[in-house]
Amino acid sequence: MSTDLTLSRTERTRLHRLRERGRSDRAELHAVLDAGLICHLGVLVDGSPVVLPTGYGRAGDLLYLHGSTANRSLLAADGQDACVTVTHLDGMVCARAIFHHSMNYRSAVVFGRPRLITDGPGKLAGLQAVTEQLIPGRWAQARPPTRKELAATRLLALSLDEASVKIRTGPPDDGDSPDAALGRWAGELPLTAAWGQAVPDPALPPGIAVPPHILARVGTAAFPLRPGAEGAAGG
Amino acid sequence: MSTDLTLSRTERTRLHRLRERGRSDRAELHAVLDAGLICHLGVLVDGSPVVLPTGYGRAGDLLYLHGSTANRSLLAADGQDACVTVTHLDGMVCARAIFHHSMNYRSAVVFGRPRLITDGPGKLAGLQAVTEQLIPGRWAQARPPTRKELAATRLLALSLDEASVKIRTGPPDDGDSPDAALGRWAGELPLTAAWGQAVPDPALPPGIAVPPHILARVGTAAFPLRPGAEGAAGG
Repeated sequence: MSTDLTLSRTERTRLHRLRERGRSDRAELHAVLDAGLICHLGVLVDGSPVVLPTGYGRAGDLLYLHGSTANRSLLAADGQDACVTVTHLDGMVCARAIFHHSMNYRSAVVFGRPRLITDGPGKLAGLQAVTEQLIPGRWAQARPPTRKELAATRLLALSLDEASVKIRTGPPDDGDSPDAALGRWAGELPLTAAWGQAVPDPALPPGIAVPPHILARVGTAAFPLRPGAEGAAGG
Repeated sequence: MSTDLTLSRTERTRLHRLRERGRSDRAELHAVLDAGLICHLGVLVDGSPVVLPTGYGRAGDLLYLHGSTANRSLLAADGQDACVTVTHLDGMVCARAIFHHSMNYRSAVVFGRPRLITDGPGKLAGLQAVTEQLIPGRWAQARPPTRKELAATRLLALSLDEASVKIRTGPPDDGDSPDAALGRWAGELPLTAAWGQAVPDPALPPGIAVPPHILARVGTAAFPLRPGAEGAAGG
């Protein structure tokens, strides 16, 4: 794998274990983030950590986080230390020994101080990034937000400057251990996600066909592995 | 839906928005947790929130969180305020208006102070709960942990006393709005996860068949919706 950019290293993102699973590679970070739909946003509320699932979109080296103005965590995150984690679970790794069981996964952890986007054009751009991340092609198809709706939308932007990526692929780690002689089965049980058939809103009048941008997604993989990513990492 | 137990209400778990999506129902909490494989554990490390994906298992009203002794977040969580969130994403909700787009999901948020399990029998019981949650039937099939391996395993237990559950199902919310007259398609694009074919470890000698507890999972749904859960909640 060849890339020009590497992620910054700080005390928090330096991997403290399983260093060989780290990816100091901005393209890998983008690939993990681009494959996702929700992140888990961790912020402090009244001094205690709160972790909430949140829709997001990436645009360049910014992550946009989206929620209602009633979402306390988004408000608490403005200008404060936050952690955003995106995880894709790719399978269970069954070893000979309980101790060596593991999971195959891709995860990105981003640290920073998100800032609330308050100007209209900035909100529109961020909302578009989130919408297109969640449902590609949707932005052009749905009615745009009114000024009032924009005012009721809370949007945060988080820089990707401080981030780390971890990926595990492949078989269990105890294939060359004494346990291999036990004769027990070992291997991976992959987990895959896919988009199902579109379900029209029952309130829809007859004669409105499922649009191409929705039809194109039906049956495709969600949280896609980038081609070539499999097998790129060791156990 | 009828249940005897309700979740405790505290300032943190009282839903501050979308109250109709709350489930004050312990059976629903268990159903969301039991359908999952990883949680996102939020703790404070050096005063800042850190959110890491972590394998877990439920046993009664305890959640066991599992990691290596090198996992700093598990150590940081011992006796400190923590937040554990489990999220299953069930689909994208496409409305007429960008503003009304949403996601169908099930999520559980647990607050508490996890405690490190340090005694051997307690660790074994917790490890068994985690292993059976991740790969049902696996505990009896793999080599049990040695004393040394147990010592190298970090396990936390978190009470489910303070928890909340949110579920969204169904079509978008703007079917009865003026936007319904726009004639644009609206509906749900469901997301499903499933277990693929088992991939034997290349290091496996020939003649070792895939065991029944693995075979039984192939092709089944992951993060299963409990029967009857669909349609149980409003938009």
